[in-house]
Amino acid sequence: MSETKQYVVGIDIGGTNTVFGIVDATGNVLASSSIKTPAKAELKEYIDQLYTALSTLIKNEGYEGKIAGIGVGAPNACYYTGNIEKPANLYWTENGERLEVIPFAAILKEKFGVPVAITNDANAAAIGEMTYGAARGMKDFIMITLGTGVGSGIVVNGQLLYGHDGFAGELGHVTMRRENGRICGCGRNGCLEAYASATGVARTAREYLETRTEASLLRNMPIDTITSKDVYDAAMAGDNLAREVFNFTGEILGEAFADFIAFSSPKAIILFGGLTKSGDLIMRPIRESLDRHILKNFRGKTEVIFSQLKEADAAVLGASALGWEAAK
Amino acid sequence: MSETKQYVVGIDIGGTNTVFGIVDATGNVLASSSIKTPAKAELKEYIDQLYTALSTLIKNEGYEGKIAGIGVGAPNACYYTGNIEKPANLYWTENGERLEVIPFAAILKEKFGVPVAITNDANAAAIGEMTYGAARGMKDFIMITLGTGVGSGIVVNGQLLYGHDGFAGELGHVTMRRENGRICGCGRNGCLEAYASATGVARTAREYLETRTEASLLRNMPIDTITSKDVYDAAMAGDNLAREVFNFTGEILGEAFADFIAFSSPKAIILFGGLTKSGDLIMRPIRESLDRHILKNFRGKTEVIFSQLKEADAAVLGASALGWEAAK
Repeated sequence: MSETKQYVVGIDIGGTNTVFGIVDATGNVLASSSIKTPAKAELKEYIDQLYTALSTLIKNEGYEGKIAGIGVGAPNACYYTGNIEKPANLYWTENGERLEVIPFAAILKEKFGVPVAITNDANAAAIGEMTYGAARGMKDFIMITLGTGVGSGIVVNGQLLYGHDGFAGELGHVTMRRENGRICGCGRNGCLEAYASATGVARTAREYLETRTEASLLRNMPIDTITSKDVYDAAMAGDNLAREVFNFTGEILGEAFADFIAFSSPKAIILFGGLTKSGDLIMRPIRESLDRHILKNFRGKTEVIFSQLKEADAAVLGASALGWEAAK
Repeated sequence: MSETKQYVVGIDIGGTNTVFGIVDATGNVLASSSIKTPAKAELKEYIDQLYTALSTLIKNEGYEGKIAGIGVGAPNACYYTGNIEKPANLYWTENGERLEVIPFAAILKEKFGVPVAITNDANAAAIGEMTYGAARGMKDFIMITLGTGVGSGIVVNGQLLYGHDGFAGELGHVTMRRENGRICGCGRNGCLEAYASATGVARTAREYLETRTEASLLRNMPIDTITSKDVYDAAMAGDNLAREVFNFTGEILGEAFADFIAFSSPKAIILFGGLTKSGDLIMRPIRESLDRHILKNFRGKTEVIFSQLKEADAAVLGASALGWEAAK
């Protein structure tokens, strides 16, 4: 890394938007912008749009020749190969044919002429937390992202746990309910993600509304439109059923965390993503459940805390932290 | 390590016996012996006995001055501190007072004047497998010991996973049955160990015999005396109920392994310990169950195999492999 190249770029490819920013060594996002992530498109067109938008940002903001590396967070991305493999929600084509494996890091490296590294979004969040956030100085922690789905980035002995194939850390898909488990988007039943994601919270609310008779503010809206935000609003307004939805969600997360701690004995489990906005509504039942379910030897040793990354910047920051790795 | 110090000592502290041996760089146990592990004793007396027996072995076999390091596998041993902490089955005293924390590595180091490292027995088995066995060349694998209990040693990126406190890898105590789970020795319910250990197999057999009416060879013996060996013998003689006991055990292990793979995506899960003597009786249902329960992205990527360490030598070999680490 030359002395003038003091900045990195972070790119977060989300299901709706692709957000990117220029970041300095202490984690300040100096400039950022975004383009739409197309649900279906020719890969070349998407890459060209990204290139144009990002190179314009770099040029206009005066960072030309000063970018040391680019880090990318994307669904189903493999750190080892630099590929995005069989992404569930991205339908990218070449001459109309769907691409199953996209050598994303190699493509960007050629376009921009700087080192590029890629990993999935939850791993990027973990690297961001370790570089700029609550996990600074920690060698063992687990990042859990509670968004539309449940993702995870596991850090062991100061390193991201990638596993033999680059795809380790799918903690949203450990099985929490082996009997009558909810159907999960992965095609199996009872996964953590089916309960503890934002959509899982909404599902729990609908289940409670259908199987119970008590009054609830949530009965004032069409049941199919209920979101985790509605459940939060109702809970904050003192709605008992909505509070119980969060208690149940926390219960399951605490059960899961007890197992995770038996695996890697992390110093902290750090929560990130939309659901963390519910604050103590979700944190209190998680901690209580964890304390009830944890193996005695581990009790009280692992903290459960919220991410310290600003949510607006977090995805870009996480990806950018990987840019420093690429630049090494 | 000087050139003349080409050997290490491995010590395995089991519940009944303390076995130790002198091992060369390629994993040959050149000489070995053992003393009883007392259920209750003054620590000093036990250490003196161990010192006398081991130093006599070293001297008589001609290895004086040639030992580079000592590795110890022991229950509840912490690699970071060198201590044995609150061992459940070892009641060691000083002037009659029970010792909760025993600085075992430091004590041996002072006695023998060579570097000493210590870890729990399952971790030692994993290091042994990586150094001399089926995991040579593997950077990511999980060792599962199926003995009286269920233990684990997890290797990530070529390193033992110790976690922030040195006690990671308690996979015998992930919860497999959250409703009506069996009581486990740890005081909780539904742990993997309560089902998939040798004692778990015997428990399953007793449950089946009590709740079913079909004929079984196992009905010819007093129900409380049935061991996993009896279940194995009956299964090999074609007993259907006994075979179903192994199918159930394999089913639960396969479910657990699907979760473990979602965590660390190992290249292999390696099985070790008494229950592995049942061979295909246990392996076939494990593989079938894993294939049914694994997340699609991981299917077919992780092998489940038996340890390649000879069982008689394995405990000493595993501990001895740690001796090389201590000597570095």
